[in-house]
Amino acid sequence: MNGTRSYGRVFAFPLWPESGTEMRHFLSTADWSRTELQALLDRARALKAGASCASLQGQSIALLFFNPSLRTRTSFDIGARQLGGHAIVLDAKGATWPMEFSDGTIMDGDAEEHVREAARVLSRYVDLIAIRCFPKFENWQTEREDPMITAFARHATVPVINMETIVHPCQELALMLALQERLGSVKGKTFLLTWVPHPKPLNTAVANSAILIASKFGMNVRMLVPDPVYRLDDRYMDAAQRFAGEEGGSFEMTTDVEAAYSGADAVYAKSWGALPFYGNWGGEAQYRAKGAGFMIDEAKMAMTNNAVVSHCLPMRRNVKIADAVVDSPNFLGIEEAENRLHVQKAVMEALSHQSRS
Amino acid sequence: MNGTRSYGRVFAFPLWPESGTEMRHFLSTADWSRTELQALLDRARALKAGASCASLQGQSIALLFFNPSLRTRTSFDIGARQLGGHAIVLDAKGATWPMEFSDGTIMDGDAEEHVREAARVLSRYVDLIAIRCFPKFENWQTEREDPMITAFARHATVPVINMETIVHPCQELALMLALQERLGSVKGKTFLLTWVPHPKPLNTAVANSAILIASKFGMNVRMLVPDPVYRLDDRYMDAAQRFAGEEGGSFEMTTDVEAAYSGADAVYAKSWGALPFYGNWGGEAQYRAKGAGFMIDEAKMAMTNNAVVSHCLPMRRNVKIADAVVDSPNFLGIEEAENRLHVQKAVMEALSHQSRS
Amino acid sequence: MNGTRSYGRVFAFPLWPESGTEMRHFLSTADWSRTELQALLDRARALKAGASCASLQGQSIALLFFNPSLRTRTSFDIGARQLGGHAIVLDAKGATWPMEFSDGTIMDGDAEEHVREAARVLSRYVDLIAIRCFPKFENWQTEREDPMITAFARHATVPVINMETIVHPCQELALMLALQERLGSVKGKTFLLTWVPHPKPLNTAVANSAILIASKFGMNVRMLVPDPVYRLDDRYMDAAQRFAGEEGGSFEMTTDVEAAYSGADAVYAKSWGALPFYGNWGGEAQYRAKGAGFMIDEAKMAMTNNAVVSHCLPMRRNVKIADAVVDSPNFLGIEEAENRLHVQKAVMEALSHQSRS
Repeated sequence: MNGTRSYGRVFAFPLWPESGTEMRHFLSTADWSRTELQALLDRARALKAGASCASLQGQSIALLFFNPSLRTRTSFDIGARQLGGHAIVLDAKGATWPMEFSDGTIMDGDAEEHVREAARVLSRYVDLIAIRCFPKFENWQTEREDPMITAFARHATVPVINMETIVHPCQELALMLALQERLGSVKGKTFLLTWVPHPKPLNTAVANSAILIASKFGMNVRMLVPDPVYRLDDRYMDAAQRFAGEEGGSFEMTTDVEAAYSGADAVYAKSWGALPFYGNWGGEAQYRAKGAGFMIDEAKMAMTNNAVVSHCLPMRRNVKIADAVVDSPNFLGIEEAENRLHVQKAVMEALSHQSRS
Repeated sequence: MNGTRSYGRVFAFPLWPESGTEMRHFLSTADWSRTELQALLDRARALKAGASCASLQGQSIALLFFNPSLRTRTSFDIGARQLGGHAIVLDAKGATWPMEFSDGTIMDGDAEEHVREAARVLSRYVDLIAIRCFPKFENWQTEREDPMITAFARHATVPVINMETIVHPCQELALMLALQERLGSVKGKTFLLTWVPHPKPLNTAVANSAILIASKFGMNVRMLVPDPVYRLDDRYMDAAQRFAGEEGGSFEMTTDVEAAYSGADAVYAKSWGALPFYGNWGGEAQYRAKGAGFMIDEAKMAMTNNAVVSHCLPMRRNVKIADAVVDSPNFLGIEEAENRLHVQKAVMEALSHQSRS
Repeated sequence: MNGTRSYGRVFAFPLWPESGTEMRHFLSTADWSRTELQALLDRARALKAGASCASLQGQSIALLFFNPSLRTRTSFDIGARQLGGHAIVLDAKGATWPMEFSDGTIMDGDAEEHVREAARVLSRYVDLIAIRCFPKFENWQTEREDPMITAFARHATVPVINMETIVHPCQELALMLALQERLGSVKGKTFLLTWVPHPKPLNTAVANSAILIASKFGMNVRMLVPDPVYRLDDRYMDAAQRFAGEEGGSFEMTTDVEAAYSGADAVYAKSWGALPFYGNWGGEAQYRAKGAGFMIDEAKMAMTNNAVVSHCLPMRRNVKIADAVVDSPNFLGIEEAENRLHVQKAVMEALSHQSRS
């Protein structure tokens, strides 16, 4: 760690204009400008096209998982390796110790370790720390602060990357790269985020992320929900509104299926639980029932502008999206998943770059 | 992935005569000719003797485990590394999502992900996919089709390797290499597969595999069981009979311990559950009791032609094989286990070779 | 494995004067002389300062965990990688098979595999085996023999490293390196091991280790306990007494808090269960209650000679050590944890070195 090495700058312009500024993490795309995000996407596209760069030579990244993963652990591990680095996978459930993140706690409960120690020690061993930590579905008021990853970012002395908490910024970049590959410039195109059925109430992370990234890139963003109780947290609704204003797009929520699909250029599926019933889901059933017909099928797709369609994986077929749509050429979920590899390499490079300058 | 690189051909003749033919997987030795298998064994022997080759340089293999493993994960990981490549271990129980493999299913049960997506996405990240997926002991009629790994092979766009499902082809090669090391040519030698006791009814994979590989290499194969209900699936019984005919060996099943051991050159131990009681084992007890004395011990070994003796690991001592036999010089289970490393390197090379040509 | 390679000797003098002697493991610092241990520390300091050496090039280490780990798996994996080698992490709970270590057992219980096979097979795949196996808290008379790791050391044909069983020798080296970095020579300095509260009775490993290493380096060792029932096993008490005699230090156990802290140069915290109640903890409560005030706080630290203070991690804040002490400049727990990386690299090098000579 912290050796002095140099390697070619891979970004066309410095992502961080001044050295000596505070260390930057990749916790949410909301903290990054559209220009910076586009630089990451451009770099990802070059890496996908075969650019090779040993930009993590001799460096390591710890991948800390509090929740399961297939694509994320594989793509980060392979990506680090392709950049000459080394990834360590740590399963925080079972393989390591339960962790406390609140300050001043008398730790006489389950937690054997405090993030203050875990983050500082990992920072002595590795050059980057990536964390997946889903909310616990107990109390949105505290969990909306993303306490575990923010504690890590506060105490770590190396950059921290979000592998999905209450947002999923790596997925956002992968989606945007796939959209740009298919649609060219996305500015002014119509992006529909549609709630879809699922047996269980799920995390809002990917929904939050979808409206953040689409609005940030100037798309006209529609959010289709079975009922207004599916409104996302104000933080993300307000940010999408603000980005729309800044970038010349629009943002609206609707419960009208036909209006939502009509003329859409991209359809993105996600299921999530309604926040008013967070952690106490009994009362949500009546609203959930209103979305029983929200699966994406050929009839709905016929209303669009021959839209591309996607979903972050895993995805339940014939529950969220019908086989005929998934297996059509308009589906770009596989490309989006592949792009995880490339955008994450760009993110690791950029952050690692920073930590050396 | 899929960059264009070249490296020296490591096989004396092309394993696949024509380019452009369908991609080949390593799912069962039954799909490979004896000549092809011998080429893999010869290459494994060269690798064991110290031949080094960066034949997986820049490539990766995903090791997907639905069941536990010690030797398999270690030997594949080390093997990939020794060839210049990189292995990713994915625990499909716990660390990733439950998976569906049937087509057209409405995925409203436990499975969060379909093999169609998992296989295609992994194929974008890695160059080889290896899978361990034991049968569930619910319904042999469906499980005999090996549905998970065949679904992966159907949907993956990179070669798939079997790390044990209802057959265990890597173990077969490791065994055959160990037999050739000890016995020289095995053609015409007598190979005894004997059922041995175990507290639980087990998977038939290694038993199926043992009769496949021994018959394919022209051995006189005897299968000793406590009762004819321990007959293996017709697919394997018929294949062994056919291979015996093609290669000049023989294949027979017997319940006569003395006749089975008499003059044997190699004794291979395995316990398995009787298929007629598959998933509903209550009725098997009376037949299982007939094999109570089937543990391999010195008295039985004395009837052989100073036979070598082996068992795939793990192995319960003094239940399947007596300590005195395991600790005798005739035991080749440790060599067989070591050979897993070498034969798997040959398999990875061969399949990877194909995917680049 | 076992190729013939040479690399520069990294130790100033041979750790093993004669070749051909029995293979040496790193199971307990009690088996190593102070001079040998200092050589490991000196090498660790050089590695920490940036010395680079591909001393594990082409080699592998298996990390076998019967219990959870954060620092240990990360530091061994990164360390092996930094030396050019490759680590394999094996979770013995869940990911591999239950293991038997007693000889002659009829293995008709849970264990599917005997250490005799596991150790010999792993030795064919890798160059070093590291094991974490905590006691089971059932019967100290058998568990004090450390049966799993000693069985591995007996049957493996490569060196075995202790990643914590009933002692924790890597932690000892990391602690001693941190002490030397802060205090210079530790000979004649006063080292206090203090029992501290914890909700559960814990393993004595780190306590045993603390008195071994401090006494071996000539410190005046005090062991503060709430009651004499917290006396450690005679093996470690006697060794500490003997080392104190040999190295010119002292060793004493006390229940007097003020006397213990008075003038101490280093304070080390650890909680453990009293051996007379091992596995049957009900009767321990009354003695445990006597230590309710034993948490390290600023008042106690004020009695010391401005002592450094540490704890192996994980550590419960405000139960074992108060926040004000942990967050003071006197706390060296983070440095001790970082040193795990460096000392383990030295140990891997030293043992690997041996296995090649």
